[in-house]
Amino acid sequence: MSTAKLSINLDALATNWRNLDALSSAETAAVVKANGYGLDAGRVGVALAKAGARNFFVAAAEEGVALRRAIGPDLGISVFSGHMEGDARLLQEFNLTPMLNSVDQMLRHFESLPGHSFGVQLDSGMNRLGMEPAEWAALRDIALGQNPVLIMSHLACADEPGHAMNALQLKVFREMTDGIDLPRSLSATGGILLGPDYHFDLCRPGIGLYGGRPFSDALPVITLALPVIQVRDVLPGESVGYGNTWIARRPSRIATVAAGYADGLIRAMGAGINAYVGDAACPVVGRVSMDLITIDITDLDADPDSLSLINPRQTIDQVADAAGTIGYEILTSLGHRYARGFSG
Amino acid sequence: MSTAKLSINLDALATNWRNLDALSSAETAAVVKANGYGLDAGRVGVALAKAGARNFFVAAAEEGVALRRAIGPDLGISVFSGHMEGDARLLQEFNLTPMLNSVDQMLRHFESLPGHSFGVQLDSGMNRLGMEPAEWAALRDIALGQNPVLIMSHLACADEPGHAMNALQLKVFREMTDGIDLPRSLSATGGILLGPDYHFDLCRPGIGLYGGRPFSDALPVITLALPVIQVRDVLPGESVGYGNTWIARRPSRIATVAAGYADGLIRAMGAGINAYVGDAACPVVGRVSMDLITIDITDLDADPDSLSLINPRQTIDQVADAAGTIGYEILTSLGHRYARGFSG
Repeated sequence: MSTAKLSINLDALATNWRNLDALSSAETAAVVKANGYGLDAGRVGVALAKAGARNFFVAAAEEGVALRRAIGPDLGISVFSGHMEGDARLLQEFNLTPMLNSVDQMLRHFESLPGHSFGVQLDSGMNRLGMEPAEWAALRDIALGQNPVLIMSHLACADEPGHAMNALQLKVFREMTDGIDLPRSLSATGGILLGPDYHFDLCRPGIGLYGGRPFSDALPVITLALPVIQVRDVLPGESVGYGNTWIARRPSRIATVAAGYADGLIRAMGAGINAYVGDAACPVVGRVSMDLITIDITDLDADPDSLSLINPRQTIDQVADAAGTIGYEILTSLGHRYARGFSG
Repeated sequence: MSTAKLSINLDALATNWRNLDALSSAETAAVVKANGYGLDAGRVGVALAKAGARNFFVAAAEEGVALRRAIGPDLGISVFSGHMEGDARLLQEFNLTPMLNSVDQMLRHFESLPGHSFGVQLDSGMNRLGMEPAEWAALRDIALGQNPVLIMSHLACADEPGHAMNALQLKVFREMTDGIDLPRSLSATGGILLGPDYHFDLCRPGIGLYGGRPFSDALPVITLALPVIQVRDVLPGESVGYGNTWIARRPSRIATVAAGYADGLIRAMGAGINAYVGDAACPVVGRVSMDLITIDITDLDADPDSLSLINPRQTIDQVADAAGTIGYEILTSLGHRYARGFSG
């Protein structure tokens, strides 16, 4: 096989869910948008349902279809983008609960799917999704008269516990919702870690389930092994890869492995990242190509059959640091040429 | 529909192929690896076959399967990664031609698939794939005795016409292959533009077909339209998006659209990019989220239903510049939640 192997540990995923669940007395749902952060929303959903999750969140109605087919009819699936033009059929057929973000969405929902389950998303300051305080003040009685199942908002700076925005959004969310006798939700992974004031009735972890910051106790969920196509000796002064950006300073042995930025190994990660054989770190050298990466294996005793790019020694967060991004993007970029294997 | 729409103009793709074909007297093949640079290798392959392409290149044997099913049994499909462990069945069943990169691959191929079509990839200096000069000198007579269909190499710096590496690799390739009475290939898009010395018998354009640099005459092939979920007014001093990185300096109107880095809109592209309504440029503001992007539409006369992120005014190369990468990565990152539409 010429393709790299992405191994997904569903036991670690379930453990992460249980450990996040133990941090609050609220119900713990699970965010499985972007195809389960790139890992396969169906497999992830089934594993988390076994662990005890009863409610799932996706970004768009289309994403709810595959998830519903995987997890069966009885568990909740909510849609962050709400009820958009043309969504009614999917929402109804697959029993999806839109989080209504605006008066437009609310009117659309009540008109096209009267009596169908819905929640309300409020904007507590991020200015991205959800009803503004004034809009909500005007619509609140009408909305509550139609029995929403959840009132939610989202934090802009929860990954920075000391950021003043967190307390500000908490205050605004309370002002918009205190006294309403309905389940409320404000927090994803970062908010869970901010403590009980932020938990309300339902928490919605995403990144923490998949092994990423800011949940520092998360177990790594994925490993990625890249098969070696070819190994060669390179003399001092010879260059490797596009643009001749790396030049050998010593007699070097270079392995070419079968994966590249078309597989989501972001081109910017090139410098400063390693590939591993057991505990031995081998530096990536030269530019990451579309389908190929070159690695300096000079210090190994023998040529390996494959090298590992993501593993407990070099997690999604460390790869993200090298690429100047966040672990979320490393996960959701994982490509479709990998042979995916699930354990647990 | 909550999902963004990626429109792929197969007529423009075919025109790019014809225009590149007209630049040389060599045969013009087509590189459709990484699922046709993210656009759908099957659709791309069929369109280019209609335009006249007779040979296609993919990165790995697995990629040849879908392509073979799409284009039928009669056209050539070559595999850059060669013949790797476990590839024999796919190579045989789908009639794929591996470009053998090493003595190991050559022995594997002759042993497991005697008589099966193959080519040879030589390393002329990039030190990534292909046989080294000394290795080739030792194997050459054996290889040529088995009737390879192509001898090829690849340029490391062809996108920089003035780079001394180009002439050096040309010289090495000539030294390794002059006098061999077999089809030879050295150039992808960049090499075609370097002129006839680099063309040999077969050219293998990739990026130029899909509308990207360095083929400056390329027609744009894709447009990407992002549906608006919600529009809101933001007061001076209010922030938008994660980390409060953007703060309104005037009363602003902000549209939230349904696409993000999980759709391949690289997180790093945030600053300095626009979204368009017709000719009107609206700046992306705040961080690109996983599923959402926020855009300043204050200067528009009316709220739009969607905004365009990739189009003839803002091509894949310009988006790449904003993200600090290359058009190739913008293409191959294009996500799987888009509704893809083909014209032509």
